Amino acid sequence: MTLSATKTERIAELRDCVAEIVDLSQAAAVLGWDQETMMPPKGADFRATQQATLHGVIHERLTAPRLGELLAELEEPTAQQELSPVDQAIVRVIRRDYDRTTKLPASLVRELALATTRGVESWRRARRESRWETFAPDLRRIVELKRHEAACIGFQDVAYDALLDQFEPGATTAQLRSLFSALRAETVALLGLIDRAPRRLSRAILEQPYDPAKQRQFGELILRQMGFDFDAGREDVSAHPFTTSFGPTDVRITTRYDDHDLGVALYATIHEGGHALYDQGIPLELARTGLGECASLGIHESQSRLWENIIGRSLPFWTFALPRLRELFPTQLEGVTPEGMVEAVNRVARSLIRVEADEVTYNLHIILRFEIEWRLIGGEVNVDDLPSLWNQMMEQYVGVTPPNDALGVLQDTHWASGLFGYFPTYTLGNLYAAQLWMRIRQEIPEVEAQLAAGQFQSVLRWLRDRIHRHGRMLTPAQLIEQATGEPLNPAYLVGYLNQKYRALYGLA
Amino acid sequence: MTLSATKTERIAELRDCVAEIVDLSQAAAVLGWDQETMMPPKGADFRATQQATLHGVIHERLTAPRLGELLAELEEPTAQQELSPVDQAIVRVIRRDYDRTTKLPASLVRELALATTRGVESWRRARRESRWETFAPDLRRIVELKRHEAACIGFQDVAYDALLDQFEPGATTAQLRSLFSALRAETVALLGLIDRAPRRLSRAILEQPYDPAKQRQFGELILRQMGFDFDAGREDVSAHPFTTSFGPTDVRITTRYDDHDLGVALYATIHEGGHALYDQGIPLELARTGLGECASLGIHESQSRLWENIIGRSLPFWTFALPRLRELFPTQLEGVTPEGMVEAVNRVARSLIRVEADEVTYNLHIILRFEIEWRLIGGEVNVDDLPSLWNQMMEQYVGVTPPNDALGVLQDTHWASGLFGYFPTYTLGNLYAAQLWMRIRQEIPEVEAQLAAGQFQSVLRWLRDRIHRHGRMLTPAQLIEQATGEPLNPAYLVGYLNQKYRALYGLA
Repeated sequence: MTLSATKTERIAELRDCVAEIVDLSQAAAVLGWDQETMMPPKGADFRATQQATLHGVIHERLTAPRLGELLAELEEPTAQQELSPVDQAIVRVIRRDYDRTTKLPASLVRELALATTRGVESWRRARRESRWETFAPDLRRIVELKRHEAACIGFQDVAYDALLDQFEPGATTAQLRSLFSALRAETVALLGLIDRAPRRLSRAILEQPYDPAKQRQFGELILRQMGFDFDAGREDVSAHPFTTSFGPTDVRITTRYDDHDLGVALYATIHEGGHALYDQGIPLELARTGLGECASLGIHESQSRLWENIIGRSLPFWTFALPRLRELFPTQLEGVTPEGMVEAVNRVARSLIRVEADEVTYNLHIILRFEIEWRLIGGEVNVDDLPSLWNQMMEQYVGVTPPNDALGVLQDTHWASGLFGYFPTYTLGNLYAAQLWMRIRQEIPEVEAQLAAGQFQSVLRWLRDRIHRHGRMLTPAQLIEQATGEPLNPAYLVGYLNQKYRALYGLA
Repeated sequence: MTLSATKTERIAELRDCVAEIVDLSQAAAVLGWDQETMMPPKGADFRATQQATLHGVIHERLTAPRLGELLAELEEPTAQQELSPVDQAIVRVIRRDYDRTTKLPASLVRELALATTRGVESWRRARRESRWETFAPDLRRIVELKRHEAACIGFQDVAYDALLDQFEPGATTAQLRSLFSALRAETVALLGLIDRAPRRLSRAILEQPYDPAKQRQFGELILRQMGFDFDAGREDVSAHPFTTSFGPTDVRITTRYDDHDLGVALYATIHEGGHALYDQGIPLELARTGLGECASLGIHESQSRLWENIIGRSLPFWTFALPRLRELFPTQLEGVTPEGMVEAVNRVARSLIRVEADEVTYNLHIILRFEIEWRLIGGEVNVDDLPSLWNQMMEQYVGVTPPNDALGVLQDTHWASGLFGYFPTYTLGNLYAAQLWMRIRQEIPEVEAQLAAGQFQSVLRWLRDRIHRHGRMLTPAQLIEQATGEPLNPAYLVGYLNQKYRALYGLA
């Protein structure tokens, strides 16, 4: 047997191992989707054990010694030379996943599962009662375990880097501090201008009675227009909108309806639709290889934010969409202009709750969490300091002070779930999206006219080519540089926000 | 360490192994349910690989050498003495499943999967074209493999017993031949009487326009009345109605709507509702043990048939249900009496298609299949003989001759799927149901008055106590004898059919 024949067998075996792990992970995703959208209430206990068992099998497969042997053999320089670029990328990303999984002792994984299950429970209670002390002991334990996790995974500079890397491969605390501080200063300045602007914007158009069945019809129309393939996906309802993929030909999104607020369902639909276009755009050849996934959460978020905010809250979008929406709601939208819709969906307000924040203030909520997180994991800040630190930073960044912890430090579930390093990907998504949009406008000068005519295909084609088709072949940094011709630069988001909101608020 | 401590550890380990297998099987069931009810069309390919991988893991777990060791240790007489009755039953049923699985060589399992995948495809084409030769070669291969399967599993008398036992533990060809020949003779005689009866019955009431949304409302009302717990289950729509369980607190049923036939959705709903009450009635203590399942397919079918036919097509049922139905369909049901509904839903007709057959002729369709099946597996009949044999027996049993094979030997998917030994469980269900009903009427003399008043609880309570709560602790034979005080006796179904249909057709 020649060396090549052996390597061919080895890579085939590795691909089989990976395909099995992907299949099982997608099976778990189906169970998760059902749980959020379809499952009857009493089904929760059995579903939890089914998921625990399925994830146990996935963990067993992902830490199998045989997988380690295959990776080691295929990483040898002689083997690497013989591998195709795709197979090289498979070895690279599976090594990453294998290491991240095997470096964690089983006892730590178990303790984290236990601590976060307890944490989510006590966090729910704490938020209901607005009582920090109810949650603090569990959070202390979780932070301790996450520090341990970071130590197991290893890091060069600060412990938080090890956690961040899970969601945004290659990103570092130092890089984000620099990106975010530029963005924060500019955003705070822009907010000051808006405070003193000659104009106020109103959401009143959106806050009328809107029949959810017709909202749904409109959401489907927009999704089709965006290029969402309903033969390869569907939209349902859940408490918190999300996107999930069981392969590029079965991508599910959810939304939620507020019968007195048109914005809630529509922007959830466009946001999740943006995520879904990415998942539907993954090439079939990459499916079941470990490469058929997003490059990072930040890149995924860039797709949802680009469609939701940059396109969905623009004048070209409403030029196309308003006449269609008026057919469904003639009374509510009598006399409303596209410009009026754009003003309603872009009102800026200093507010307490991240998920309700507008496009300008949103990033300040994220930067605040990032600045707290990396210090918390690094030990520069303690759990006990969080409520006062939160309130102080809210005043400094957003300019409002939470009247209680339920509307402050207790508002998000992420920390209770052990998700440290996740928040920054939201703002990275906005940064990536603005830079991609700059490039799209350069390469497709007529794009805004196309959008106003309901022609969304050229944007989708561009995103398919520059982002979607690469799956997890490239790192986020490579992807952005290759797509736009330069590394991530916060100037694009700063420029976009300034231009858009100065115009909207008559600050030109 | 004492012997007892060791046995305690062993049974705990066995229970852990079994719980894992049950969890994974229920996860596969969730994927199956989604596939039939929710999945977008393009999702089929990835779903097939997800299911194949998941079933591969289940097969791996169910044939693990460690499982065999645990069973052997726990089967020792000294160990048995120390086990609780539930643990003894777990060892018994898992031994059964383990043996059935390990006795089949992996190559046979693979070949069967391949042959039946091909078979279902060629059967679909064959039925569309009404061309037996399109399907015959694949069926020949499937029959060959099923004979091999029977030989691997082993049998005392005839090869078919080994296949039958999978669906109806303990049932034998000899026993069924005897039960079925009595039933067939009596049914053929009853049909002869009905031919010459002074009355004809008409389905015309049912064959009017009925809004599916209102049909759905009525179906839900009936399900609630039966005791179906919508917090522990749901009803959806699929091409072929079915019931599936992910544990007793999450049981899903489906139905399908015909907007010009009231009977289609309603009786599918009551039928699947009967199955679902069984699954919802399994005690929580038996869940995840291998005992939290039906005793057999025949027993499962007895629950659906009892509710669908014996209760759902009775005068007490329609006395309660008709006023509720009339509120939804006042025009269609003007002047209709409960007696009129009973006549409409019980019309007897010699017909070609099993799934459309009435309660009397239905069993003849089954007996025909059974008589062909056991001879086919035993080699007394060949695949080439099937079309003419089928037509001959249809003439002899049902009194009609199929004009082509699509309406004859090609009508069912079972053989293409390799399901030999499955058909008889449908008629066993009818036999069990009639015997259970006899006993219910003895023990609850006022049951018909209760049903007419919409009080279905005492029937459900009786079934919960005699059938549901035992899960798979008892064999079908034990269950029936314990529930009714005697072994299965075809006289009850014969008596029930004669009494009911003689009255309906004015033959008293």
